[in-house]
Amino acid sequence: MSTHLSLADLHGSLSDPLLDAMTFLNEVTERYPDALSFAPGRPHEGFFETGQVAKYLDVYLDHLRGRGLTEDQVRTTLFQYGPTKGIVADLIARTLANDEGLEADPASVVVTVGAQEGMLLVLRALCAGPDDVLLVSSPCYVGVTGAARLLDITTVPVPEGDPAALAATARRLRAEGKRPRAFYVVPDFANPSGTSMPVEARAGLLDTAAEEDLLVIEDNPYGFFARAYGERPTLKALDRHRRVVYLGSFAKTCFPGARLGYVVADQPVTAPDGSTTLLADQLAKLKSMTTVNTPALSQAVIGGMLLTHDCRLRTANAPATAHYAANLTVLLGELERHFPAAERTRLGVSWNEPEGGFFAVLDVPFTADEAAMERCARDHGVLWTPMAPFYPAGGGERRLRLSVSALNERQIAEGVARLAAFVRASA
Amino acid sequence: MSTHLSLADLHGSLSDPLLDAMTFLNEVTERYPDALSFAPGRPHEGFFETGQVAKYLDVYLDHLRGRGLTEDQVRTTLFQYGPTKGIVADLIARTLANDEGLEADPASVVVTVGAQEGMLLVLRALCAGPDDVLLVSSPCYVGVTGAARLLDITTVPVPEGDPAALAATARRLRAEGKRPRAFYVVPDFANPSGTSMPVEARAGLLDTAAEEDLLVIEDNPYGFFARAYGERPTLKALDRHRRVVYLGSFAKTCFPGARLGYVVADQPVTAPDGSTTLLADQLAKLKSMTTVNTPALSQAVIGGMLLTHDCRLRTANAPATAHYAANLTVLLGELERHFPAAERTRLGVSWNEPEGGFFAVLDVPFTADEAAMERCARDHGVLWTPMAPFYPAGGGERRLRLSVSALNERQIAEGVARLAAFVRASA
Repeated sequence: MSTHLSLADLHGSLSDPLLDAMTFLNEVTERYPDALSFAPGRPHEGFFETGQVAKYLDVYLDHLRGRGLTEDQVRTTLFQYGPTKGIVADLIARTLANDEGLEADPASVVVTVGAQEGMLLVLRALCAGPDDVLLVSSPCYVGVTGAARLLDITTVPVPEGDPAALAATARRLRAEGKRPRAFYVVPDFANPSGTSMPVEARAGLLDTAAEEDLLVIEDNPYGFFARAYGERPTLKALDRHRRVVYLGSFAKTCFPGARLGYVVADQPVTAPDGSTTLLADQLAKLKSMTTVNTPALSQAVIGGMLLTHDCRLRTANAPATAHYAANLTVLLGELERHFPAAERTRLGVSWNEPEGGFFAVLDVPFTADEAAMERCARDHGVLWTPMAPFYPAGGGERRLRLSVSALNERQIAEGVARLAAFVRASA
Repeated sequence: MSTHLSLADLHGSLSDPLLDAMTFLNEVTERYPDALSFAPGRPHEGFFETGQVAKYLDVYLDHLRGRGLTEDQVRTTLFQYGPTKGIVADLIARTLANDEGLEADPASVVVTVGAQEGMLLVLRALCAGPDDVLLVSSPCYVGVTGAARLLDITTVPVPEGDPAALAATARRLRAEGKRPRAFYVVPDFANPSGTSMPVEARAGLLDTAAEEDLLVIEDNPYGFFARAYGERPTLKALDRHRRVVYLGSFAKTCFPGARLGYVVADQPVTAPDGSTTLLADQLAKLKSMTTVNTPALSQAVIGGMLLTHDCRLRTANAPATAHYAANLTVLLGELERHFPAAERTRLGVSWNEPEGGFFAVLDVPFTADEAAMERCARDHGVLWTPMAPFYPAGGGERRLRLSVSALNERQIAEGVARLAAFVRASA
């Protein structure tokens, strides 16, 4: 008799509505391949060239030779298993110093298979038992809530940009016998909301974290892509007391196909015998049980890319930054044009004005659910992402996320025109 | 005040003696860089050439062009996020058909970051709650027991090669209210024991699995490397009822630095609404929460390597197979020479005679622990792996694992001479 499994017998994270929502979004995208899509958060491809990969690889291998490695050692580095913490921590540290003014000891860096694996490792290390809770800024990136579900970790949402709520929630949880361990936040151009924390709020968050004995997990995939000049310091750059675990990604600043991310975790960890390691070392131990080590191939190619750009990705990404900024400006301008201020209240339409990044949020006068999304794709040829799945405790039912990263200016203008027609038809 | 963490407050898997043992082994290896090491299970490097990487990549990109992809689509495939299940499932399926006579539907394949990620996903999918238990063949590869610990899944050891014990253990657990979900086994040249399941035992295992409603997780990193001709069918090739989830790895048959593995999971999964997917689809959902997708870069390079070898890795690996076989023959021959049969009983020394793979096990007349390992490295210049950490329920204290994969014949002969001196000094 053939084996049959029941979904109900498998792990609960597989029955999560969030996963169904993501699956549905992918299906609709495939069913309407000609629709203009504001859905994907992937980077623009115009700056990629396949011929560059071999060049970056050569640059990295030459760098190893320049550091005195023999040809055999170069071969071992590229082809064999390697150190669990990775082989390009030094280049990542130099890049962080140049781009973010962030002085990270290479020993505190763990190179991961995307920032997603970094999240999984940090959550696993910090949350030891059923009472350990992760606080998340809400609306929240689905990657972190998903990783928490996979590990059976409870997440508790805190409204985005509300430090008083963070402290109050931590205290309430502690009074209930829970142990709030960390607060996950994307301070720059958050996914999905597009919003950013003001500089003074960053210092305040670090104070709150210290008072409530929380770590802060700072995820920063979009920090480079400011619309107007004037970047803000990362939380980690402001962190004087090792409160912040920093998640980095090369998916948007180099390319996603390498799946390269990293964690900066410089917190000391004391063992019962009194010996001290860094949290990074503990994350590396866990990593030996998830992926063993990050592909040397990916590290070598991204390493070569960093070396090619003198470990200055902000400069290297200037054309990409200009591209996303122009796109966001077109999006906001076209929304203004299609929904004149005088009409907006009557229509029940509004949106935020992010200062950078890939995303903006549109409030609409109807439920922006899967049915609406499919109707919009079918009848109006335009796609977007419902916001509700990003709210762990409910909310956002009449909101949708618009991403400008994968379209060009003409497509964005046309997309907003189609979207406006849909909103007016649905109002 | 600076943040300090206590190891006791972090997840329990970080305080596992197994991890300490692996860390200690790495430390000793670093402290005695000139010692001959029978410890690492990594492949021989003599067949790797750095110049090949760019060629394999080109072969794969040309393959995409040959399938009608435009230059933009080729670029997207290499640089962007990609399908969670991967992009080389078709090539993997062809290779499995050619090399193993195993007909796998590409839809049942999930490409993973090494077999390690595959294990993690399978364990997570199958073990939904605290009563769900994983049976493991003991001594057992530490990767699977480690992944189970990371997920708080209980593992129950079953003595290697004892099908009656498997059935009895499953029944006992069920009587205790537990739910035994699957049995993890390496049927060919197991890590750490080097032993293999006879063909008739394979059919028997599948019958037992059916009777006890267990899935079998077959891990097969070493199957190619038979010392004498006469390979055995994989469990998956014998599987007529979708009982077997197959874990594959390209670490030993291509190279580890790509970190490419895969799972074949063709089990149907029925959702509460009656719709059916494959277990592979469910694993892919979980994968979106661990690493999102396997690096396209790694998939492209290994894909090009498969295409270069006409999807016949067994043939391509003939020189590697001959190399490992010769090494194993030298190891066993030198053990014979240094421990003549007449002396063996008196000395309390014996070993098994694996028919292939990387590993053999030596029984010694003293506790083969970390202290012994360090003494042996320091005084005799030779390293090995203690077996005790591979026994989840204790055992193996006077056993050590010898790996022949990373040494040459001369080194093996010299290593056994040193080891024999150590054994005689310690007896």
